Amino acid sequence: LHHWIVTIVCDDRPGIVHAVTGAIVEAQGNITELQQFSGLESGRFFLRLQTETATDHGGLLAALQPVIESYGMECRVDRVGRPLRTLVLVSKAAHCLNDLLFRQRSGQLPVQIPLVLGNHPDLAELASFYDVPFESRPVTTAEEKTAFEERVLRAVEEHDIELVVLARYMQILSPELCAALEGRIINIHHSFLPGFKGANPYRQAHQRGVKLIGATAHFVTSDLDEGPIIEQNVVRVDHSRSPAELVAIGQDEESRTLSQAVTWFAEDRVLLDGQRTIIFQ
Amino acid sequence: LHHWIVTIVCDDRPGIVHAVTGAIVEAQGNITELQQFSGLESGRFFLRLQTETATDHGGLLAALQPVIESYGMECRVDRVGRPLRTLVLVSKAAHCLNDLLFRQRSGQLPVQIPLVLGNHPDLAELASFYDVPFESRPVTTAEEKTAFEERVLRAVEEHDIELVVLARYMQILSPELCAALEGRIINIHHSFLPGFKGANPYRQAHQRGVKLIGATAHFVTSDLDEGPIIEQNVVRVDHSRSPAELVAIGQDEESRTLSQAVTWFAEDRVLLDGQRTIIFQ
Amino acid sequence: LHHWIVTIVCDDRPGIVHAVTGAIVEAQGNITELQQFSGLESGRFFLRLQTETATDHGGLLAALQPVIESYGMECRVDRVGRPLRTLVLVSKAAHCLNDLLFRQRSGQLPVQIPLVLGNHPDLAELASFYDVPFESRPVTTAEEKTAFEERVLRAVEEHDIELVVLARYMQILSPELCAALEGRIINIHHSFLPGFKGANPYRQAHQRGVKLIGATAHFVTSDLDEGPIIEQNVVRVDHSRSPAELVAIGQDEESRTLSQAVTWFAEDRVLLDGQRTIIFQ
Amino acid sequence: LHHWIVTIVCDDRPGIVHAVTGAIVEAQGNITELQQFSGLESGRFFLRLQTETATDHGGLLAALQPVIESYGMECRVDRVGRPLRTLVLVSKAAHCLNDLLFRQRSGQLPVQIPLVLGNHPDLAELASFYDVPFESRPVTTAEEKTAFEERVLRAVEEHDIELVVLARYMQILSPELCAALEGRIINIHHSFLPGFKGANPYRQAHQRGVKLIGATAHFVTSDLDEGPIIEQNVVRVDHSRSPAELVAIGQDEESRTLSQAVTWFAEDRVLLDGQRTIIFQ
Repeated sequence: LHHWIVTIVCDDRPGIVHAVTGAIVEAQGNITELQQFSGLESGRFFLRLQTETATDHGGLLAALQPVIESYGMECRVDRVGRPLRTLVLVSKAAHCLNDLLFRQRSGQLPVQIPLVLGNHPDLAELASFYDVPFESRPVTTAEEKTAFEERVLRAVEEHDIELVVLARYMQILSPELCAALEGRIINIHHSFLPGFKGANPYRQAHQRGVKLIGATAHFVTSDLDEGPIIEQNVVRVDHSRSPAELVAIGQDEESRTLSQAVTWFAEDRVLLDGQRTIIFQ
Repeated sequence: LHHWIVTIVCDDRPGIVHAVTGAIVEAQGNITELQQFSGLESGRFFLRLQTETATDHGGLLAALQPVIESYGMECRVDRVGRPLRTLVLVSKAAHCLNDLLFRQRSGQLPVQIPLVLGNHPDLAELASFYDVPFESRPVTTAEEKTAFEERVLRAVEEHDIELVVLARYMQILSPELCAALEGRIINIHHSFLPGFKGANPYRQAHQRGVKLIGATAHFVTSDLDEGPIIEQNVVRVDHSRSPAELVAIGQDEESRTLSQAVTWFAEDRVLLDGQRTIIFQ
Repeated sequence: LHHWIVTIVCDDRPGIVHAVTGAIVEAQGNITELQQFSGLESGRFFLRLQTETATDHGGLLAALQPVIESYGMECRVDRVGRPLRTLVLVSKAAHCLNDLLFRQRSGQLPVQIPLVLGNHPDLAELASFYDVPFESRPVTTAEEKTAFEERVLRAVEEHDIELVVLARYMQILSPELCAALEGRIINIHHSFLPGFKGANPYRQAHQRGVKLIGATAHFVTSDLDEGPIIEQNVVRVDHSRSPAELVAIGQDEESRTLSQAVTWFAEDRVLLDGQRTIIFQ
Repeated sequence: LHHWIVTIVCDDRPGIVHAVTGAIVEAQGNITELQQFSGLESGRFFLRLQTETATDHGGLLAALQPVIESYGMECRVDRVGRPLRTLVLVSKAAHCLNDLLFRQRSGQLPVQIPLVLGNHPDLAELASFYDVPFESRPVTTAEEKTAFEERVLRAVEEHDIELVVLARYMQILSPELCAALEGRIINIHHSFLPGFKGANPYRQAHQRGVKLIGATAHFVTSDLDEGPIIEQNVVRVDHSRSPAELVAIGQDEESRTLSQAVTWFAEDRVLLDGQRTIIFQ
């Protein structure tokens, strides 16, 4: 038996669930998980289901095809547990990369990582321990930045990358690169957005005297730190913590928040409703 | 247009979602919310959906009837937002009753409360402020206990009660009463079960030196503090807290946990899978 | 035996704790709690201790006087558990006032409330149930606003008010009133500041698609929603929640956050270090 | 300037803080952090302070000596940031060891680890990546168990070990070993104690249908899972999670809870008050 994930996005109207599940029945599938959501403001309908069936990918898509056409659906059929081809970008901070690689090896994170790209060489050894190819090139001039981004796009093509993860990559991407990777590039921002956008969020948090600090995983858009939010976490701090201690405390939340977002994305649980995300946990 | 909640429990097999949603389509309903779960160990299937339709209660049930029979379903159709007829039992502690009544009046808790029964008169004034009838009778002898429980059962019958809530009612119920109210009586226990069953859980927690204290809302069974758990919350404490301070700190979690459980029950979001609960949030 | 709270703020230098505790020893006090903090950036020293002693207020102050003068300290000596004279301002929303009054009556909140002032009459009945005087006057014109604020200042004088609490009071205060009450006026803002300042924070939170919503208790300054933060809490939400649901969900956090801040303030646990608060829990 | 941590435990009576801070003044120290606690039930007094001074270890102890004798104190003077000599015991699960080693290398965990001992060879490569010696020997017979424990004690002596950490070491220790290491051996139990002691706590948690799962770091005593608790954390789960998924979800809490407990212990923030711990954060 195969296990498939089916995700569907279309304009909302009556009968969609019945039509889709009818196609699943036709493909002799048993539905093991099903979630749906109707966006009241956008008028869009979102569905994710898992099904076990003897039918293969093509057979399932064929069964769904009439429904897809009739409702004008965006539909995606994916195998449960298939590792997502993921490119990771890093700078010097190791904690997010370490967390992603450890979970990947432990079997908790359904990705495969054909390459880690850094603008510093610091994390080469860590990647090597996990047998992941690592490549670094400096990004200090405009030319280097352009070259780095071209390397990113080439890697995306070469490895047929489905997701780019900025694991504390500390360079701002060009609008062109953001546009080219739209909807398949995730960043971890080290604050509870929309508070403390931009640089040095922990220093901002210290100055403002907040009692909770946090981390936000979000899609990258050309509008800095404004992309759709996927996941957020916070942790309590008090007046006694220096900015440097906030940095250390916040690392746990950054790691777990980014890994959670990547996991959900890899399991086809993240759908976009305008500037908001639908997360089917 | 009417808004209906449909909940279904039956043995799991392929095609159920399609069959049920087909009946909804037949009744010209639009599904606005749908959640399902298959219990791997029990082999049971659970579904909750909300639908808007011009069809009335009888019409919707009629449309579902063939499916219900074909699959041997337990099925319930209820109007969204209908206040549940709820009997509340109390002793002296006011915080849970206060929270339930405040939320009920604010429109956040879909219940109506025809009666509050106490084994102490202390909360009469509070009930009166919220225009809820209050009655108290002492429970110090075996005869009084029997009389109190008879009063409970009579009240259940008189007011066609759908849910009994023990809002820090400090008497142990007889096995007979537990049996008579099975599946429709909820208690708030002032610890994070299964830790610290029985009396004085905060004193037990203090002695054990736990770093988090909690509260558990659960169905009442004749097996004390062992009924299926509906909701739990915890709050951090430290070594400096006396047992009396733990009592005060824990009250917030007790109130919110009980109100959350009652809300979910009233919205038909709580289903039983043996000793475990399915919560369709 | 008396129980006293001593709070001290001064410029930091060696020997302060020894000097202060020497004065306590001289007053034959036993220290039961002591916390201190040195603000690295501000160079200020903060201390709070509790002591039990046969000495009265004047005797304890006399013992401390030489130290106070020698170090140029701001020093405050207060009786443990003395209820703080508190004025509460409200509009229509009941949850924060209800929470404050319930906790006050339960003995969990060491305040006495000689008056609740509203710009709407809606909460008169609630105040009356708790035997608290209530007065309302409309604030729809500039003249009415001036009159309302004059009434606030008069009430502060008449009742020797030590703390003003804005319990979801929905009017912006004039800079003059903010200045007059500086350091003794607390607001609850219904978002996790600094995110979503100003009006309709839950609508803003919905549009931005955040995964946690929160509440912030802070000192009021003329700079709207920018005053020093005392306490913050958050609660998890998901894509399915409408702005109206966020409002309902957030009420619990608003109530508990405000009551927590008021409790700490009433127990002399909140000290100001520039734009940040020191909280000695 | 040196930075010292002073911890003191003695019977409670008036004047202790003054006496201790007097000795610090005499040693020309500036107190940068001070916390104290009086155990009401045990009648014991606990204090931890940090001081910066030109005085060396011997000089500071000499200044404290008269006070120590006069009050019958247990007193410890330690250098801030000195890495604690720590022995780690493991089996097959990698997440706790990985977390400890990553934090140690990042400079977040003030320990040095001269040896990791396993009853399986699985984690040799991980230890090697962090340049930590690793040794494994099977524990399947009584003789092997005795030999393993003798190796532990020998390693403790050889490396002058101050703390033994059971990082998901899955063997029960003999009462003799527990006694020999009393007060300096910490275990991570994969449940929220006192719920679900013993083997397979996640399976127990699944059967009981709890809504939060957790982890507990505690001192090891011969009374299994009953030693004094140092830290606990929980995470929310729902009905849909299988026991295997609970295992994966719980790993984050296990890692962070254990690392937190080890950090506090290494910073002399954990003191024992009978069966309870005082944690001076």
